[in-house]
Amino acid sequence: MAATSTILQGGVTTPRGFRAAGISAGIKASGGLDLALLVSDAPARAAAVFTTNLAVAAPVIVSREHLARSGGTARAIIVNSGCANACTGDEGLQVARDMAAETARLVGCPVEQVLVASTGVIGVALPIAKIRIGLPIAFSAMGAGQGAQAAKAIMTTDPFPKESAAQIAIGGHDVAIGGMAKGSGMIEPMLATMLAFVTTDAAVPSPLLSRALRAAVDDTFNAITVDGECSTNDCVMLLANGASGVAVDETSYDAFVAGLTAVCRELALGIVRGGEGATKLVTVHVTGAASSDEARKCAKAIANSPLVKTAIHGGDPNWGRLIAVAGRAGVAFELARAAVVIGTTVLFEDGRPHDENAPQAAEYLKGTDLSVSVDLGAGRASSTVWTCDLSAEYVRINADYRT
Amino acid sequence: MAATSTILQGGVTTPRGFRAAGISAGIKASGGLDLALLVSDAPARAAAVFTTNLAVAAPVIVSREHLARSGGTARAIIVNSGCANACTGDEGLQVARDMAAETARLVGCPVEQVLVASTGVIGVALPIAKIRIGLPIAFSAMGAGQGAQAAKAIMTTDPFPKESAAQIAIGGHDVAIGGMAKGSGMIEPMLATMLAFVTTDAAVPSPLLSRALRAAVDDTFNAITVDGECSTNDCVMLLANGASGVAVDETSYDAFVAGLTAVCRELALGIVRGGEGATKLVTVHVTGAASSDEARKCAKAIANSPLVKTAIHGGDPNWGRLIAVAGRAGVAFELARAAVVIGTTVLFEDGRPHDENAPQAAEYLKGTDLSVSVDLGAGRASSTVWTCDLSAEYVRINADYRT
Repeated sequence: MAATSTILQGGVTTPRGFRAAGISAGIKASGGLDLALLVSDAPARAAAVFTTNLAVAAPVIVSREHLARSGGTARAIIVNSGCANACTGDEGLQVARDMAAETARLVGCPVEQVLVASTGVIGVALPIAKIRIGLPIAFSAMGAGQGAQAAKAIMTTDPFPKESAAQIAIGGHDVAIGGMAKGSGMIEPMLATMLAFVTTDAAVPSPLLSRALRAAVDDTFNAITVDGECSTNDCVMLLANGASGVAVDETSYDAFVAGLTAVCRELALGIVRGGEGATKLVTVHVTGAASSDEARKCAKAIANSPLVKTAIHGGDPNWGRLIAVAGRAGVAFELARAAVVIGTTVLFEDGRPHDENAPQAAEYLKGTDLSVSVDLGAGRASSTVWTCDLSAEYVRINADYRT
Repeated sequence: MAATSTILQGGVTTPRGFRAAGISAGIKASGGLDLALLVSDAPARAAAVFTTNLAVAAPVIVSREHLARSGGTARAIIVNSGCANACTGDEGLQVARDMAAETARLVGCPVEQVLVASTGVIGVALPIAKIRIGLPIAFSAMGAGQGAQAAKAIMTTDPFPKESAAQIAIGGHDVAIGGMAKGSGMIEPMLATMLAFVTTDAAVPSPLLSRALRAAVDDTFNAITVDGECSTNDCVMLLANGASGVAVDETSYDAFVAGLTAVCRELALGIVRGGEGATKLVTVHVTGAASSDEARKCAKAIANSPLVKTAIHGGDPNWGRLIAVAGRAGVAFELARAAVVIGTTVLFEDGRPHDENAPQAAEYLKGTDLSVSVDLGAGRASSTVWTCDLSAEYVRINADYRT
């Protein structure tokens, strides 16, 4: 079956049977939205991928436990921004459990059917009193038109909310997939990534749901980087509530993954576009690698190189920095067969510079949606990752984050 | 024998029998000093370590060849700044050979006794005509008091020249060791590092000289980072001309390595202090690691973390970022036994924050010579590396490097 998906305007409440809310619980000193609630009207199949950081945050511990205890079933996700509830010891763990318990009481479901996520400063106590007051407010505010509010309430340094939705046809019936994500700094997923929440009204059995999520995440959230950092709280959660009455099986799996990947890619690119201090989205292609792993490794090294990212920020077609990173990336590399292309302009090929093309590349780099390609001259494998430029604003944001 | 060394004011011409020059050959558009010549009056034993970058620059190729052909003997080193002569194809290789040949003609030695180094923009042709005109000027300017001029002529974005010298006693006789280095960005040595040139008037047999250089480099140039980048041109060259009449053997080896390490450490820390945009020198200690390799790996991850480096720039005792890097560094880590100490102030210990100490740590971070320590709670191995903070000035320097 050909996998076609239509991109929609929308987010987590686009699929049927999901309601959401985003309110201010006073966790952020700014008074901004900081508490998001996402509820499925019926118990949904749930799958998730979590951070590989060994300093794992309390909400990740609790969500993992709940997924295991519920056998992959969830009714609600409760998320706060402004405080990561990470490195907060046993008290922090109790706060995460209390958040889930209070949500379960309001929703009227077993506590293990509630997933929890937090994002913000590490090592600061999350004030459970504020969440106890905020939760009923969120519960009353909840609606099928409130996905956009929820997407705003999970933001920290994000310059804009990230939402995405798609529609796919399965056996002549429409199924919707919707998502929201936050993330701007501390972005380089290792297995999981920042916070992202995706819903679908398809009915998807647990093993297929987990497999589909891993497939979609690998080419989207796991292929982006802002600063090479991996947080203590990263997670992507996917709920499938079956409200469309359409079931996904092995026959329709590819169509479902295509739709899911489209939604995840849109969210992932949104994170990079809104990367801390970012002014440009950069697609990094590495070709001519000895293996896919080496291609990805080199692409990540380029995407995280401060010298490459500052050159792109300055609009400087400094291909030498791309070659220098490729040479130090710890992958097979043949200078005499290597190439660098910025946009569609060849700047280095077969061991020789083409600096006569530099003005054309410099003109291209004035754009905001850019691609750079490096051929390693060592094989036939390739990989694509996305990154952003490195600006003085990144430094300002992160030097002043808590002050 | 106790290894004692006295730090001296001085540089590459402090040891007897070395002369140097630094002149302007017009390679830099600014007209600044850009050609350095270092000559030993007598043939010297030479050892060197070079970049591990696979995109290796022409001067590195030529210097490696010459060391092999001369059996580790050198009379002169010729260095230009303003152009790296890297990724310049066969023409670039010929330019590096011509630089060596012209120097050999002036000095009156076999061409394989001349080593060549270049630093600056990658991929731009080095104008050999300017070097042909500049070299005789450098040769006439050469003197035993010109080490400081040479140290200036190898600089690119360095805010100040790096020189160092030490005196050690061997069998009641004084031996001097002196060095100069450049490097400010693209600094993370892998085996070798940026450009550094060290001289000694001791007589040191080749095998001992190479062994001593590797030992000294591992704890100095290989333990620093500015931005995690490794250049195409990195090298450390060491010349021993025996002009003191004192020979180093196995008995005095430790004393020699101690002196050599002292000189190299001073140069390496100078590179970090003068890192692009740097305002603070940061010593990163990692303890409690499962192995030395893991300790070094984690210390490098912390030292290269943009979030750690920006927090330190902003004077923010954001210990959570240190924990987050330790957790993602790919090394054994036990959060419940981990600790973070900034200066001497404990901010996290045994799984619990000590935020009551944050004001004291914030006060400490106003200084310019800082230390941060992370205990991984996983073993007994440790490592120390040096880095600098990440400032908006780093971005400005590197976004505008060529324009």
